[in-house]
Amino acid sequence: MTPRRMDPDAWGRAVIEAVSPEIDYGRFPIKRTAGEDVEVEADIFSDGHDVLAARLLHRREGSKAWAESSMLLYDNDRWRGAFTLREIGTHAYTIEAWVDAFATWKRDLSKRLEAGQEPGVELLVGADLVEAAARGASGAAAKQLLECADMLRKSPPRIGAVEGALSAETGALMAKHGPRGRVTRYGRELSVTVDRERSRFGAWYEFFPRSTSGVPGRHGTFKDCERRLEYVASMGFDVAYLPPIHPIGRTHRKGRNNQTVCLPTDPGSPWAIGSEQGGHCAVHPELGTLDDFRAFRQKAEKLGIEIALDIALQCSPDHPYAKEHPEWFRRRPDGSIRYAENPPKKYEDIYPFDMESETWSPLWEELKGIFLFWAAQGVRIFRVDNPHTKPFAFWERTIREIKQAHPDAIFLSEAFTRPKIMYQLAKLGFTQSYTYFAWRNSKWELTQYLTELTQTPLKEYFNPTFWPNTPDILTAIHQQGGRPAFLSRFVLASTLGANYGVYGPAFELCVNKPRQSGSEEYLDSEKYEIKRWDLDAPHSLKGVIAKVNRARRENPALQSNRGLRFHDTDNEQIICYSKRSENPNSLVIVAVNLDWRYVQSAWVDIPVAALGLDASRPYRVHDLLSGASYVWGTRNFVKLDPNAMPAHLLRVEQ
Amino acid sequence: MTPRRMDPDAWGRAVIEAVSPEIDYGRFPIKRTAGEDVEVEADIFSDGHDVLAARLLHRREGSKAWAESSMLLYDNDRWRGAFTLREIGTHAYTIEAWVDAFATWKRDLSKRLEAGQEPGVELLVGADLVEAAARGASGAAAKQLLECADMLRKSPPRIGAVEGALSAETGALMAKHGPRGRVTRYGRELSVTVDRERSRFGAWYEFFPRSTSGVPGRHGTFKDCERRLEYVASMGFDVAYLPPIHPIGRTHRKGRNNQTVCLPTDPGSPWAIGSEQGGHCAVHPELGTLDDFRAFRQKAEKLGIEIALDIALQCSPDHPYAKEHPEWFRRRPDGSIRYAENPPKKYEDIYPFDMESETWSPLWEELKGIFLFWAAQGVRIFRVDNPHTKPFAFWERTIREIKQAHPDAIFLSEAFTRPKIMYQLAKLGFTQSYTYFAWRNSKWELTQYLTELTQTPLKEYFNPTFWPNTPDILTAIHQQGGRPAFLSRFVLASTLGANYGVYGPAFELCVNKPRQSGSEEYLDSEKYEIKRWDLDAPHSLKGVIAKVNRARRENPALQSNRGLRFHDTDNEQIICYSKRSENPNSLVIVAVNLDWRYVQSAWVDIPVAALGLDASRPYRVHDLLSGASYVWGTRNFVKLDPNAMPAHLLRVEQ
Repeated sequence: MTPRRMDPDAWGRAVIEAVSPEIDYGRFPIKRTAGEDVEVEADIFSDGHDVLAARLLHRREGSKAWAESSMLLYDNDRWRGAFTLREIGTHAYTIEAWVDAFATWKRDLSKRLEAGQEPGVELLVGADLVEAAARGASGAAAKQLLECADMLRKSPPRIGAVEGALSAETGALMAKHGPRGRVTRYGRELSVTVDRERSRFGAWYEFFPRSTSGVPGRHGTFKDCERRLEYVASMGFDVAYLPPIHPIGRTHRKGRNNQTVCLPTDPGSPWAIGSEQGGHCAVHPELGTLDDFRAFRQKAEKLGIEIALDIALQCSPDHPYAKEHPEWFRRRPDGSIRYAENPPKKYEDIYPFDMESETWSPLWEELKGIFLFWAAQGVRIFRVDNPHTKPFAFWERTIREIKQAHPDAIFLSEAFTRPKIMYQLAKLGFTQSYTYFAWRNSKWELTQYLTELTQTPLKEYFNPTFWPNTPDILTAIHQQGGRPAFLSRFVLASTLGANYGVYGPAFELCVNKPRQSGSEEYLDSEKYEIKRWDLDAPHSLKGVIAKVNRARRENPALQSNRGLRFHDTDNEQIICYSKRSENPNSLVIVAVNLDWRYVQSAWVDIPVAALGLDASRPYRVHDLLSGASYVWGTRNFVKLDPNAMPAHLLRVEQ
Repeated sequence: MTPRRMDPDAWGRAVIEAVSPEIDYGRFPIKRTAGEDVEVEADIFSDGHDVLAARLLHRREGSKAWAESSMLLYDNDRWRGAFTLREIGTHAYTIEAWVDAFATWKRDLSKRLEAGQEPGVELLVGADLVEAAARGASGAAAKQLLECADMLRKSPPRIGAVEGALSAETGALMAKHGPRGRVTRYGRELSVTVDRERSRFGAWYEFFPRSTSGVPGRHGTFKDCERRLEYVASMGFDVAYLPPIHPIGRTHRKGRNNQTVCLPTDPGSPWAIGSEQGGHCAVHPELGTLDDFRAFRQKAEKLGIEIALDIALQCSPDHPYAKEHPEWFRRRPDGSIRYAENPPKKYEDIYPFDMESETWSPLWEELKGIFLFWAAQGVRIFRVDNPHTKPFAFWERTIREIKQAHPDAIFLSEAFTRPKIMYQLAKLGFTQSYTYFAWRNSKWELTQYLTELTQTPLKEYFNPTFWPNTPDILTAIHQQGGRPAFLSRFVLASTLGANYGVYGPAFELCVNKPRQSGSEEYLDSEKYEIKRWDLDAPHSLKGVIAKVNRARRENPALQSNRGLRFHDTDNEQIICYSKRSENPNSLVIVAVNLDWRYVQSAWVDIPVAALGLDASRPYRVHDLLSGASYVWGTRNFVKLDPNAMPAHLLRVEQ
């Protein structure tokens, strides 16, 4: 009930508080990718006027030894240090601080000498401190410290004794070997999940495998998908992501445009998972076999593309689970299994799992097994459908256990819901998250939202991905704005976000007809039918997409969200921002016309010095979309035509 | 190393986070005074779309049973509840939340009915829920619930069955008796220290007992102090606070104006504690005996005044501890005890304790005993000298243990140091704290500082007191501004702060000569000599002080810092603010001329509706300083003459 009390004998004089980054007092890990730093800050102080020292400790999970690096005071009792993460997996960090007796002695001696006081007995005090350190050292260090102590003890005092004691060399030896006395260890070991680089940076392309045959009416197969991968690779995507590939149920199957009656030829929704032909660990027979899937995955690998699968934890009424494990579903008093509802809406083709069932524990194990099954087929990226409708505890446990076996696994949370719920899923283990990007169109909205995502503590654990469209989301701006809007939204998604994705070919072909006015559903949605796409249509954005994806691969600034900064423009329709990385050095400036109707122009202000440029002279920028070069300064004119190219993507030549 | 993991079977669907108030995740208690509320907020949400319920739990330390009160959702997954604290001591609070099956059923049923759907089997689902609650109830409640369940089971459905199930009455019974399923308990029990009212509200008067004889050259006694108390009471002060009253050392005694040599007649500094006549538990013989002190304390009690003592944990070289416990002091290599230093400054009349001594544990016990000794003499308010030069762990332990014996004890921290250190002392147990008020003179500074103290999380644990002067602090504004500055600073301290104090009679007599230019030390400081004060000097502020202290006692708004709000004025030299309490209802508006040279005037804007006044008509204000009455509205003219009265203290008549 009362606050935690110290071990009465273990008190230290230093206090360590307000550590950053730290999520909910260490309840959840922060996230990084291999090669990134963690810059740690803390309030560190003690009673009295003594000088403090502080060290940042870090280690891999399972390792006993801590690596140490020093922390330095920078202002108002705030200290700072950093360490670099090399390996994926879980790492820990914490802080130690203590009163540094030798540094205090040094400072006080200097003050006494400056004031013209005789050092007198103080030299002997210093000698005792140095001698104590020598006892903790060996070899040359011990010898040097003992000599220093001897010099300090000589009477009368020797010239050079004080200089030797106050030297940087002695200081370094003392910092290493000096006894630390009562060390305060921060009360918690904080955790950092280190993922591979793909979690930080990737261009995703979602497509329905059944629409890849190119032959009207013929269901696409994984063999067809192998050809489609070449097209995806030609646009420079990193990840190809497939909607569910499992057998599709027949009971209450939805027809075209989500009708409740369907024709015998309608293929059904891939999210109505499970039939007599199998469940979540089976492949829809019309797509091929599991061997075909593996061949497809290997083809992707050769093309430098990784496969992501959509895992939707729900069943069609025909799923084998419904017969084999009726206890995993909720029953109504009339004995029937409760189908999905969001009253008054009914989803009779879907049975949700009862995650609170009395047999929740074997159910949770079984569901984890689905991920492990696909991991065994070589899949490491899982896009999880509606994770916010399953208990948080399930995800925390499941993701942890899967990552223990596969630390390179990536989980994308598809939770379009209230912000605190989205953030909770990120805290408890999801690697990446969908965002509200699709509905942030104005300069003000984009600036506010991106600032929240990249400049607040969210940046430590919520890794956003930006999708201008998905099979469920055809936003009003695309419906109204057509190709110019698709272009500007594409440049925004792919340059604001190190991670972004599109649902194609609907995206690059600028498909923008809704089922009805006011709806975000596509007319004749691919969710319920097989489509045939004209990949070579002249209005396709594939050429621009390829340029941008090349720019993303060649400019490290675009591979992280950390260096994002918005710049002032004098026109609300023109947004301008830069992304910068320091190691390796890379700087990109982007300007986008948000108005899909009219040509817009603006003066944009670039804070040259803050971006690491020489403020005394102009610099050259190269537009990676048009190929043009310009000379820029602090104030620059841009004019962008939505019907030609609504954006500049400027690499700054340094 | 990894974050704390849940008990695998104890998972609940609700998440409880971002609880407020909460200091450092419950490491430290918040503070309240008896009769005050704690308003608690938290982010509470779960997976899915079910309806949640949440309860705030609280109890006294040592009590097993929790008192429950409901929390309500108000916005964006943020919930709010409150409880009232009646008794001093330590209390705990925490939160529980769960998915409310009946409320979810009710909401969904209403939606189905609104959409014109037949309730069908859903009524049986409700019947099961109600019947389960009946099993947890007894008597009339059980009967009523069973009747409700029976009605729901009737086939065909009866008119009234649904109305009965959806009624507020059934809702209340279900909230009380319904099974809660998987309840999430917040991970911590948070603590609140409840102090008596005096900790929230008090006017302090500091005086040197040795200067009370009224006879030139004669050392004042506790008998003289009894007479002085009547003077203090006539001004309406609540607390009389004395500098150390212990025997004063002779070795290196300081002379007048802190000279390092003294005359045999110089009385020395009361902070050089201890002589052959005793230490911290003895009384300076020239003041009288311990019996005299007790009589003095009783006299104060009769006058409604409480005595506060200054506890300074340091010794003169003549203190008995120096002989009896040399192990409690730090020694230099030459064997001498190390006196206090802040290089290059030396304080040879003071030995600091070595709080890290090998025998720190008995030393700490001994020092705690000093407080307990004076508590046994009836003292409950301790002003602690320089607490920031002793380990934080010492104070946390010592204050906790003293308050276990004396929960009515009040500790005022005299730590004029860096903010994080001052705040840490408040967190770990100090009831009240000195502040930077003495150096905050401009409107901007006062507004910024008071906003920080009263509108940020500091308000939960840092209880400020405002002192315009102390024996160590004669600020530049008093030196330069004389009586007009003393007047305006007095009104600011006593109306901005529910707790304030002055060092008198130097304050009310407007003593303002520094020892030298640029110094904040008084010329001929009372710290080193016996003063004789002309209490009836015509320029004394005692009359104004009496008026303000009466206003403080009669207007509850002035007895807390919670209702402080600053108001716009169109003149940087005029500050205006109000204090408001709702229960009991009380509203005071203060306007002060910050310029001690010139008459200043301003228009001040009063947010009438926000202060609970009827915005449609004027209101009457009564100036408690001048006796005048005015009719005010939203925009009001004030004109204040520093040489007459630089402030309005307006009680709003309601």
